[in-house]
Amino acid sequence: MPRTSAEFETALNLAIDSKTKPIASLGRLEELAAQICRLQGTLRPVMERCELIVFAADHGIAEQGVSAYPQTVTQQMVLNFLNGGAASNVIAETLGIMMRVVDAGVIGAPIDHHDLINRRVASGTADFSQEPAMTDEQLQTALAHGTELALETQCDAICIGEMGIANTSAATLIVHKILGLALEDLVGRGTGLDDAGIARKLSVLRRASARTTAKLDWRSALAEYAGFEIAMMVGAMIAAADSRRIVVVDGFIATSAAVAALTNRPEIDGALVFAHLSAERGHALILDALGVLPLLDLKMRLGEGTGAMLAWPILQSAAAIMNDMATFQSAGVRRKS
Amino acid sequence: MPRTSAEFETALNLAIDSKTKPIASLGRLEELAAQICRLQGTLRPVMERCELIVFAADHGIAEQGVSAYPQTVTQQMVLNFLNGGAASNVIAETLGIMMRVVDAGVIGAPIDHHDLINRRVASGTADFSQEPAMTDEQLQTALAHGTELALETQCDAICIGEMGIANTSAATLIVHKILGLALEDLVGRGTGLDDAGIARKLSVLRRASARTTAKLDWRSALAEYAGFEIAMMVGAMIAAADSRRIVVVDGFIATSAAVAALTNRPEIDGALVFAHLSAERGHALILDALGVLPLLDLKMRLGEGTGAMLAWPILQSAAAIMNDMATFQSAGVRRKS
Repeated sequence: MPRTSAEFETALNLAIDSKTKPIASLGRLEELAAQICRLQGTLRPVMERCELIVFAADHGIAEQGVSAYPQTVTQQMVLNFLNGGAASNVIAETLGIMMRVVDAGVIGAPIDHHDLINRRVASGTADFSQEPAMTDEQLQTALAHGTELALETQCDAICIGEMGIANTSAATLIVHKILGLALEDLVGRGTGLDDAGIARKLSVLRRASARTTAKLDWRSALAEYAGFEIAMMVGAMIAAADSRRIVVVDGFIATSAAVAALTNRPEIDGALVFAHLSAERGHALILDALGVLPLLDLKMRLGEGTGAMLAWPILQSAAAIMNDMATFQSAGVRRKS
Repeated sequence: MPRTSAEFETALNLAIDSKTKPIASLGRLEELAAQICRLQGTLRPVMERCELIVFAADHGIAEQGVSAYPQTVTQQMVLNFLNGGAASNVIAETLGIMMRVVDAGVIGAPIDHHDLINRRVASGTADFSQEPAMTDEQLQTALAHGTELALETQCDAICIGEMGIANTSAATLIVHKILGLALEDLVGRGTGLDDAGIARKLSVLRRASARTTAKLDWRSALAEYAGFEIAMMVGAMIAAADSRRIVVVDGFIATSAAVAALTNRPEIDGALVFAHLSAERGHALILDALGVLPLLDLKMRLGEGTGAMLAWPILQSAAAIMNDMATFQSAGVRRKS
């Protein structure tokens, strides 16, 4: 990640403030424009192509009844992605975003489909209420796949999305162990638990948490509690940021991957854009802890990168301001009296 | 405006809840989808074309020093729109939105440009601290022009934007007189006043307010205090809503036009989408009074329809969900257990 010089900052501020608009009147669009310029090391940023990578995997913890849906739904939804019928397909198509679907470790027989990227680490993780979700070697493999997939992209921005029944449970424990936020503040309804379901989920997660020390480093937190999709997202986020691409972070689960990635490599923060505030309880708390303000608040809680993609037109607009807006001088507009 | 039947509502809810996603997990996207379906009277809504109409005009009140910029900037910015260099041009181009620019009453010699729509009611309004901003006849003309311009559109959604030095002052008085909100809560920095400037603006607006009764009906409020661009926006909003098009309301000034339009014709509310929360002080207060929650909060305060346009990709995505998402049945995905 490039560190910007004082000269660059001066030139950047001058470029933004010379545009035909009252100072700072484009608000967060200007902040995003500056972030993109810093990341790309230019005052003429490129923000033309975007892709969504959806990482899918299953979680052994689902057997403890922490989700409103059965594990088989992960595979069914992967097929739905491949057939173009999911919310993420529809939004990607609408906004001109390319889409790749990765099987990071879905249970059952491997899906044979020409559009599916097979990076199955295993057929789901182990039940982390009983034992570590994955081995160190599996974690290493998942991180490496994420890195490699991100490095294949030709896009200026990558939305990182996921699908995996029970993965709010995994995300909750990762954040709990890395940031120390209380379990009871993080546990939410996921895809639709009722109050009794939430109580059950909390009790399962308390038991799972008690299996390890109160705090864990990012690597141990992932090995103990992550899914293969979350570990791959961590690898993808770091690699995309290192290659100076904007990483658009989706909701609760993607943010747990961002927490691990940022703990490992704090300097990638300049590449990350937190797209939206999920309606999943606990997301606001994590974003607060990271000191970031999400762009959108549309009460969404679907995952699949749906919230991340809605930030893409805003990113494009931010870059376009730098490239295409007239200056007071070029347009012959009088400045503030 | 069509009133929806109970049967339609049932079919609508069924259609949304049969899509492959947890119930209500797309949050405000689902609410928008339902709003569009109701407006168009179909479960297969069309949201393909969008245009921005920017109405520009000058305000006699500017002579009282209520703005950080001189009145000549209105005309300079109209030329900037016509040359494609303003923020609104850049965002429209980025998001695939058509754009029309209307001279509703800019001071100085009329601009001769093939892309400018000339609907000049007069060369600026009168100074409303001294006398009514416009005659009843001028108001009638402006409303009629707005109606006619909106009826010319072929688009599914119309963003209503504006440009006019000192028009936050006009908007403030319109809202104050119609809704009864306190002047001191509504008066803000506009394009960039300092504290002394705000104090001066408040004192000018208090004087202007004292000229008329405490409350005014929408028509008198417009004749006394509006600009020609604001009156035209009122006409355009009502006509667009009547022809079942989504009206995307921009920031502080566009919202003052919406207040007048809704007071005249409350039943058009189903067509209005309040795109964003402006950073202009008072906007949040007006939206609260209307009981609406804006879609975006990006700390923008530029006008020109810039905030409205950023809602367009969200509207497109909302409609696409209805048209293109698979159902649990069609995709073979198991429902919640």
